[in-house]
Amino acid sequence: MRPASSAPPAPATTTVGIVGGGPAGLLLARLLHRSGIDCVVLESRDRAYVEQRQRAGILEQGTADTLRACGAGERLDREGIVHHGIRLRFDRRSHRIDFPPLTGGRSVLVYAQTEVVKDLIALQLAEGPPLVFGARALAVERADTERPVIRYAHQGREHALTCDYVVGCDGFHGIVRDAVPAAARRTYERGYPYSWLGVLADVPPSCDELVYAHSERGFALFSMRSPTISRLYLQVPNGTDPADWPDERIWDELDARSATDGPWTLARGPITAKSVLPMRSVVTEPMRYGRVLLAGDAAHIVPPTGAKGLNLAASDVTELAHAFAHLKETGSTELLDGWSDTCLRRVWRAEQFSYSMTTTLHTDPGQSAFDTRLQLAQLDRIASSGHAAAELAENYTGLPFARAAVPTSAR
Amino acid sequence: MRPASSAPPAPATTTVGIVGGGPAGLLLARLLHRSGIDCVVLESRDRAYVEQRQRAGILEQGTADTLRACGAGERLDREGIVHHGIRLRFDRRSHRIDFPPLTGGRSVLVYAQTEVVKDLIALQLAEGPPLVFGARALAVERADTERPVIRYAHQGREHALTCDYVVGCDGFHGIVRDAVPAAARRTYERGYPYSWLGVLADVPPSCDELVYAHSERGFALFSMRSPTISRLYLQVPNGTDPADWPDERIWDELDARSATDGPWTLARGPITAKSVLPMRSVVTEPMRYGRVLLAGDAAHIVPPTGAKGLNLAASDVTELAHAFAHLKETGSTELLDGWSDTCLRRVWRAEQFSYSMTTTLHTDPGQSAFDTRLQLAQLDRIASSGHAAAELAENYTGLPFARAAVPTSAR
Repeated sequence: MRPASSAPPAPATTTVGIVGGGPAGLLLARLLHRSGIDCVVLESRDRAYVEQRQRAGILEQGTADTLRACGAGERLDREGIVHHGIRLRFDRRSHRIDFPPLTGGRSVLVYAQTEVVKDLIALQLAEGPPLVFGARALAVERADTERPVIRYAHQGREHALTCDYVVGCDGFHGIVRDAVPAAARRTYERGYPYSWLGVLADVPPSCDELVYAHSERGFALFSMRSPTISRLYLQVPNGTDPADWPDERIWDELDARSATDGPWTLARGPITAKSVLPMRSVVTEPMRYGRVLLAGDAAHIVPPTGAKGLNLAASDVTELAHAFAHLKETGSTELLDGWSDTCLRRVWRAEQFSYSMTTTLHTDPGQSAFDTRLQLAQLDRIASSGHAAAELAENYTGLPFARAAVPTSAR
Repeated sequence: MRPASSAPPAPATTTVGIVGGGPAGLLLARLLHRSGIDCVVLESRDRAYVEQRQRAGILEQGTADTLRACGAGERLDREGIVHHGIRLRFDRRSHRIDFPPLTGGRSVLVYAQTEVVKDLIALQLAEGPPLVFGARALAVERADTERPVIRYAHQGREHALTCDYVVGCDGFHGIVRDAVPAAARRTYERGYPYSWLGVLADVPPSCDELVYAHSERGFALFSMRSPTISRLYLQVPNGTDPADWPDERIWDELDARSATDGPWTLARGPITAKSVLPMRSVVTEPMRYGRVLLAGDAAHIVPPTGAKGLNLAASDVTELAHAFAHLKETGSTELLDGWSDTCLRRVWRAEQFSYSMTTTLHTDPGQSAFDTRLQLAQLDRIASSGHAAAELAENYTGLPFARAAVPTSAR
């Protein structure tokens, strides 16, 4: 039964209508709010759900800087853990990539996406702009006009939000993509013959930095959420049921894949969550259709190996907020018109890096002994060449935002 | 009818018996001769045949230095052309990789393998050691003893050459590999779904440096043998018959694959030779069995894209001659015992580089639009990042010889 009547949960019109209250949508709203630009965020799930979704955990320096600049830096700086390097493990060897000397002083921050989301939600609920949970977007209409409309359902009623611009931050399966006619976009895609089994464990991480392990048994990643919580991943076949992986089997396999001649003891502890993450590469071009824009996972997906997904979303919306502010200040759509191209160059760079890191570290079930040797030769090269190591470190810590096309006078 | 009797064409015993009179065997003989170590080179073909085989044309600086050091540098320095860079062409763009600033001053030399072979043959026939043409090796016997024997046919008679060591420089289809029991070696291999159509043309090269062109039509390479002779390559399907490629079709295709928005005119001229070159990656491990050693193509093959084949052969035999000299001077087999491992690290590095350059520049008939975009993203990265460009330049101009395992006192 529908409620007899209720006030709409948000204004009926706004400048920028944002579909999706994940990190992309929330950060965009924050940045627009700071520039005095009206916006509304519609999120289909409830707050509790959004705040517990386990996702990425590595913030590039540029992403952390953006969060700080928009007031979401306090807890991040208190609880986030700065990492100055990562470890590569292969052929029973351990090798550390030391970021600062290879990148002019850059590092990354371990701070879970769920925590970023909590911080941004708290800020937005306290200061605005409007953030509506349980608002399920149904369709974007009039996408080819100057006043696109988001139709959405909230507590059993349908509403319309008329916007100057609609931004889809609603992920790969979101509905905003569907507003772009198939003939006006092109999707590039690649699958992988493996997934990740990700687990959370109540045990301090066995290494103070992330360990990326190549093994003929399959890839393993030793990561963390905090000084007391480990986040661990095992390459598994697609379609794996987490139920087939009792805790003991997980720990044994993590042990086997991280075997080294150097010192290393894998600390075991209670596993509190298990899930299987598929891997995929996707890019949709362009990221804009008229006044409808796609940001983050709605426009592109990377396999998680390079930790680029959340960071690409952050750079998309940072650039986008910059373009909207430019429009507001100058009346010029120049930056907005160039936004998709600006983002896509960075996106393809990240796609290539993520693909390369994924295929160098994972074992394709069909790969030959020659392929395995090539992987080891490339890892040996990274471990012995300054340029190869720097190429990894630069991409991992994040490339600078690409605003080369912006006239200096406009900055 | 056999000749009734004839003197053997070479001594019946030697220290190092070398099978194969290509650049690897000839250079090894030259280096051993300089160290006062007895050797004999057996080559199955006649001199004219060996001197006209069209092969590689790019010498790393280390290869050129070795040739100079053993007296084969005079014509090379007069006629060879120093190249300080290469051009990448992709997405209608042209980008130059400038070697010296990226590599601490390294460059490469354009000087055809056929010319290297001519120089080395002339030297060896003038100064020794014995070089026997038309000596077809039949088998290596007693490979597991301290006195292996090469059986060979020469002018209708069979002969035996008893050696302290046998070195197979007789290429991928050579007979020395067969002396190593299958259980004592492992072969790593990969094929490619394309070949090169290589042509020689009597026309000055259209660019003073090599042009590596990525195109959705397939890869093309614009190279040269001299200031008046162009050496050009087109990616073609495996099994292509050169007869299906009349000259006009070759020039049109070279034109189409090198299209650029920048200045570029492809000069056409008479094509004097056409052939199809298959592509393959092969590594045999170890490169030694008892007193039988495999060097150059007998041990490993790379696809030609990175110009590494001849240079790997040169580094194999340079290291090997060094190890034999060390044995002669000190009585220690330490370097000889480590030789295979020393070479293989460099070999796998070159295999990985050659594979990477090949797969970044060629169009796999089965590749998706996503794969093509990844190739372009990687080429764009090389064109815009110092480290990515330096990684290419260092590998292309050649890594330093890896003698890290040699005690300093022994040098």
